[in-house]
Amino acid sequence: MNRIISSVLFCLAGASLAAQSLNVVKTDNLTQLNRKEIKLPEIEGYELLKGDFHIHTIFSDGDVWPTVRVHEAYYEGLDAIAITDHIERQPSKQFVGGDQNSAYKIALPEAERLNILLVKAGEITREMPPGHLNALFLDDVTKLEQKSYMKAIEEANKQGGFVIWNHPGWRAQQPDTCKWMDVHEEIYNNGWLHAIEVFNWDEYYPVAFDWCKERQLAFVGNSDIHMVASHRFDYNKYHRPMTLIFAKECSLSGLKEAMFDKQTVAWFANRLAGPEDLLRKLFEAALEVKKPFRITEEIAAFELVNHTDLMIHLKNTKPAAGAPKEVKVMPGSSVIMKCELLNGKAVLPYEVANFYTGTQSVLKVEINVIQ
Amino acid sequence: MNRIISSVLFCLAGASLAAQSLNVVKTDNLTQLNRKEIKLPEIEGYELLKGDFHIHTIFSDGDVWPTVRVHEAYYEGLDAIAITDHIERQPSKQFVGGDQNSAYKIALPEAERLNILLVKAGEITREMPPGHLNALFLDDVTKLEQKSYMKAIEEANKQGGFVIWNHPGWRAQQPDTCKWMDVHEEIYNNGWLHAIEVFNWDEYYPVAFDWCKERQLAFVGNSDIHMVASHRFDYNKYHRPMTLIFAKECSLSGLKEAMFDKQTVAWFANRLAGPEDLLRKLFEAALEVKKPFRITEEIAAFELVNHTDLMIHLKNTKPAAGAPKEVKVMPGSSVIMKCELLNGKAVLPYEVANFYTGTQSVLKVEINVIQ
Amino acid sequence: MNRIISSVLFCLAGASLAAQSLNVVKTDNLTQLNRKEIKLPEIEGYELLKGDFHIHTIFSDGDVWPTVRVHEAYYEGLDAIAITDHIERQPSKQFVGGDQNSAYKIALPEAERLNILLVKAGEITREMPPGHLNALFLDDVTKLEQKSYMKAIEEANKQGGFVIWNHPGWRAQQPDTCKWMDVHEEIYNNGWLHAIEVFNWDEYYPVAFDWCKERQLAFVGNSDIHMVASHRFDYNKYHRPMTLIFAKECSLSGLKEAMFDKQTVAWFANRLAGPEDLLRKLFEAALEVKKPFRITEEIAAFELVNHTDLMIHLKNTKPAAGAPKEVKVMPGSSVIMKCELLNGKAVLPYEVANFYTGTQSVLKVEINVIQ
Amino acid sequence: MNRIISSVLFCLAGASLAAQSLNVVKTDNLTQLNRKEIKLPEIEGYELLKGDFHIHTIFSDGDVWPTVRVHEAYYEGLDAIAITDHIERQPSKQFVGGDQNSAYKIALPEAERLNILLVKAGEITREMPPGHLNALFLDDVTKLEQKSYMKAIEEANKQGGFVIWNHPGWRAQQPDTCKWMDVHEEIYNNGWLHAIEVFNWDEYYPVAFDWCKERQLAFVGNSDIHMVASHRFDYNKYHRPMTLIFAKECSLSGLKEAMFDKQTVAWFANRLAGPEDLLRKLFEAALEVKKPFRITEEIAAFELVNHTDLMIHLKNTKPAAGAPKEVKVMPGSSVIMKCELLNGKAVLPYEVANFYTGTQSVLKVEINVIQ
Repeated sequence: MNRIISSVLFCLAGASLAAQSLNVVKTDNLTQLNRKEIKLPEIEGYELLKGDFHIHTIFSDGDVWPTVRVHEAYYEGLDAIAITDHIERQPSKQFVGGDQNSAYKIALPEAERLNILLVKAGEITREMPPGHLNALFLDDVTKLEQKSYMKAIEEANKQGGFVIWNHPGWRAQQPDTCKWMDVHEEIYNNGWLHAIEVFNWDEYYPVAFDWCKERQLAFVGNSDIHMVASHRFDYNKYHRPMTLIFAKECSLSGLKEAMFDKQTVAWFANRLAGPEDLLRKLFEAALEVKKPFRITEEIAAFELVNHTDLMIHLKNTKPAAGAPKEVKVMPGSSVIMKCELLNGKAVLPYEVANFYTGTQSVLKVEINVIQ
Repeated sequence: MNRIISSVLFCLAGASLAAQSLNVVKTDNLTQLNRKEIKLPEIEGYELLKGDFHIHTIFSDGDVWPTVRVHEAYYEGLDAIAITDHIERQPSKQFVGGDQNSAYKIALPEAERLNILLVKAGEITREMPPGHLNALFLDDVTKLEQKSYMKAIEEANKQGGFVIWNHPGWRAQQPDTCKWMDVHEEIYNNGWLHAIEVFNWDEYYPVAFDWCKERQLAFVGNSDIHMVASHRFDYNKYHRPMTLIFAKECSLSGLKEAMFDKQTVAWFANRLAGPEDLLRKLFEAALEVKKPFRITEEIAAFELVNHTDLMIHLKNTKPAAGAPKEVKVMPGSSVIMKCELLNGKAVLPYEVANFYTGTQSVLKVEINVIQ
Repeated sequence: MNRIISSVLFCLAGASLAAQSLNVVKTDNLTQLNRKEIKLPEIEGYELLKGDFHIHTIFSDGDVWPTVRVHEAYYEGLDAIAITDHIERQPSKQFVGGDQNSAYKIALPEAERLNILLVKAGEITREMPPGHLNALFLDDVTKLEQKSYMKAIEEANKQGGFVIWNHPGWRAQQPDTCKWMDVHEEIYNNGWLHAIEVFNWDEYYPVAFDWCKERQLAFVGNSDIHMVASHRFDYNKYHRPMTLIFAKECSLSGLKEAMFDKQTVAWFANRLAGPEDLLRKLFEAALEVKKPFRITEEIAAFELVNHTDLMIHLKNTKPAAGAPKEVKVMPGSSVIMKCELLNGKAVLPYEVANFYTGTQSVLKVEINVIQ
Repeated sequence: MNRIISSVLFCLAGASLAAQSLNVVKTDNLTQLNRKEIKLPEIEGYELLKGDFHIHTIFSDGDVWPTVRVHEAYYEGLDAIAITDHIERQPSKQFVGGDQNSAYKIALPEAERLNILLVKAGEITREMPPGHLNALFLDDVTKLEQKSYMKAIEEANKQGGFVIWNHPGWRAQQPDTCKWMDVHEEIYNNGWLHAIEVFNWDEYYPVAFDWCKERQLAFVGNSDIHMVASHRFDYNKYHRPMTLIFAKECSLSGLKEAMFDKQTVAWFANRLAGPEDLLRKLFEAALEVKKPFRITEEIAAFELVNHTDLMIHLKNTKPAAGAPKEVKVMPGSSVIMKCELLNGKAVLPYEVANFYTGTQSVLKVEINVIQ
């Protein structure tokens, strides 16, 4: 009995059947699953795509068939994924055949059916240095089977690939530190490195925020899931680590262009890390500063409304105009602010404590209160 | 010890304090409550307000102090409320003093602080006919203390009041039926009736949908809460019954004007009831029909995205172009549709099964699929 | 990078690490997953085991590696599972090697580590009749590869196997009906059939309740999952379909003995189906009738407390002693009942509407109210 | 229209009505609320009662009618409450009449109907010292209206009252410290003080744990709610602060006797504070150490099962027998432990990090692992 395909179709169509008999009773409506759309700010001129570019399947050391990764992405509201099975590590080889292109081929029809952009990719899996690197947008993953890691990276670039240094501070490879080594400098100088994974799994690497900023590399957040995603992430609390891509259009070419242009922000567990200009765009489109609803002498009261799923954490140890020191505007929520007005105006400087622009710097904003 | 005011301020500011000592440890962050913004479609030219105009307090037979009703409205994302204590029924009189204007006066400062529009109102509470009627936008509720119900209704209208016939099919008053009686005809003919409560508490009155449509009365949905709201409504499932008002601006005068213009839709438990043109506006702004992401020969696949908290239930027993018979687009979710194209186009007629335009009629729409 | 094993160990140990540095920050505590213990009544003399004996993996047409099925069972609170890949249907064969014993072998170490009883099994997958049959407790699944289904069933029995007729009313095989056919009679008469799957996936087959009762076959409920379990079942609402086994001890031999003794009850979506004596044991141990807390003249008020995850739905269209017609005692909840007393006593007969003893019969109980 | 009483009755009976007509449609089933039973360990010889003895209503500066406090207690699974309106502070006096016994009288019938033990009580509300003190089990609260706080405390004791020092470290009264003052010593020496509120609202006072231990005062946890309880506590995370009472029977006299015997433990937000012997009883009855399910050479694997709603947090920086340093056994959950055996046994010493026996001491336990 094979109900995989039909049941997914059912979920999509959302039909409910109510035939009641003594022969068979269906309880369909108990179990329908829907795609949950992630609420991101709408930014003029961009399609904001949500991607996860570090994912494993049965074709290396992951736990699931490639199509499962498409289903997970669909239900969680993602737009793009890359399956990045280890090129050099395939412990299931005793049972699982195919080559490094097989996972992609198997997942593709399901990705097309569900409108998930599927990126052909692989993970170059080496000792440190250089550690692990993902190569995206490949033509033929098998050609990355190279003795020399430098050859593998070169081949990825020959194919027009986008190369990410994965989890640079992973303890298994950099137990007491997180260093940019000579080998990384060499890869970078060759123009072969395009991004760093600043969020991976359940960890992040603050030191790498400055590396991205200073070398103009893309900030990337990925899940690196091996197990079933729902065994890893408690969706009642958080989505998986992901990358937000400021694309011109929702297509593979739009995605690729934006990533090579470094138009990305990494996101996980209420933290964002990325270039200042993109974080500012997100902030400004996410937070609505409403016109004051009450003006009492020299005091204004107004609402900050957060229409998105991004949390916004404002801080200022010495706030201006009697405004609060700390405000969290939770997703889909609003808060009421009070401040003093001067000539009918107020300008409130804040740091957005969870929008990281560098290792020890966060986005600085001003909230303009006008009658 | 009185922590009421300070704690609410705390909730608004969203501050978290972490002082740890052996004297006192605070666990503030465990307990912060935020206003949850209801996601409604954005409609050009309108501020869509969410109101509940049937609410009781300690000043008649309700269970709470008037400020609690403001707090509940704030947390649940409402914009406007009317406290409508029974004019003729005040069982707490032994302990609770004041007059019919007291609840309004007590709640007003808190409403102003939290930007909740507070409507001065009262409930004319009589045997059937005419049953119970709410009078909104009053100047002085005490003047509605009249022996004759017709005098009370006349007085409400003298004050420029907006009169709603409450829960017309309530079994306690119309046990086996739900009839428009001569008395209602008289009130209506005098121009003294402006709306009917088609949703109340946990029930609704389909027969009244046609009354509103034919006599051009406003469709109103209210909670009629007497107890604490969270003891009545399971917010994990549903909001309270409410009225959506298509106002020109978020103010008491904007609200009043829109209600007298009958620019309202009633909403509860995934059901909407209202005039066809307003339901159509809601539908069109709520449901995005995306450009097909896949065209295979004569088949198009495309997404329907619901950006709002309104559920959309499409039905067509004989669907066109091979489209599905039934689709539920859940709040904040999307579904994938497939249909056949003719000359690169498809027009899919559906009924929106949960958008009621009359007793036995629902909104009819067409989904235009274009490449 | 392979974090599968270590992360599961982490989950089990429940450790939290708080090392904060600029190199790497862990957010472990956000994501810990625990086994959720299902609360069942404690019944003297029995270990009540929770089993699912119909599960697919990558080794037939399922979506996951065999160890995932053990992890799912662990987290969901199950005690026993059988992986029952199709013997005759293996669409992944192009990529996945091994034989019919491979899934069992791969899953076994993880099952032993997590104390999940793993039953060696396979699904005989044929046209109707006889349809699909699961064979549990096998020695060598490969020997069930037989041209004749009768030979395959015979071989299962030779190995001491326990044979279940799966989803007898599945529409794909019995579209308009659900019939016990001559072939089933023959298998049954040979003593080769031990159970019927009365709950499967999202459906159930009332007509089969009487088949189990009349022929003394075990009532079995199974998930038949092919996809990831969390893509199928919304745990906020319901557990997966499962079988409750009244075993003497928590071991494979205890499980096997109890199943051959037909000491089982099927459970899904608030419905139980099984032999009357076992349902009565469950009911009596699940529902506590407390001593009346108030006696007013001839009226008693008392609590019914449900300490378990089984819902209890009492009904009586003509209730005795003024008791209510219908009461749902939800899991982990209680209700207050009132009735009249005669000589300080009351006996309240009820049907337990969700405890099925047959196609059209439910458990009958009496609630004894004594001061 | 007054639906308060009937709707509560409905909730209790759990009936569902399905009458569908064009006159009125009920959606009852959407909204039923049940009492949630708190799962506590069963301890031989005791009825473990759950109480909150610091609660305000409209009769001082609280927000709700007294019956609401009974309903909240019922739904949240409490067994006993005291309404403790401020004797000296009644800001609603302009509108609310009655005397200090009124709240009790109003709430009593509802408490009796719902089997909630209602304690007659009041809060002596003074500057520090002595601060605020609750007096429980009073006959006539009005007699506590005394100019001298010492007279009020004496009167409480004359009536056989149980006196609690409330929130000793509340910043409004002890901003930088939390001191036992001469006045408290005097009250204590008179035998007039019986308990200290070590948990209140969202805070706790570690220094007071030793005061209770050294002076043999009862550990008490209370909510001190003024607003609606559901506006204060997010039940998805935590229950309200409460007191667990080891009573001989579930009655007012059983409650009173146990409290005067200091048989209490305070509970909030996963923290317990109380006498060592009671905490040990809770621990031992809450945590089941199962027989090892696997013995491999010198290693045992076994489960710790937590059948209750109490979290159990085990810690040992230098654990014995290779056991883990830290284990959290979450409510209704279990964890798998591994350790080494010596002669087929292991004794694992742990601290229970969230069971406080004093200001800086926690419960010490041993887990005995036996084959």
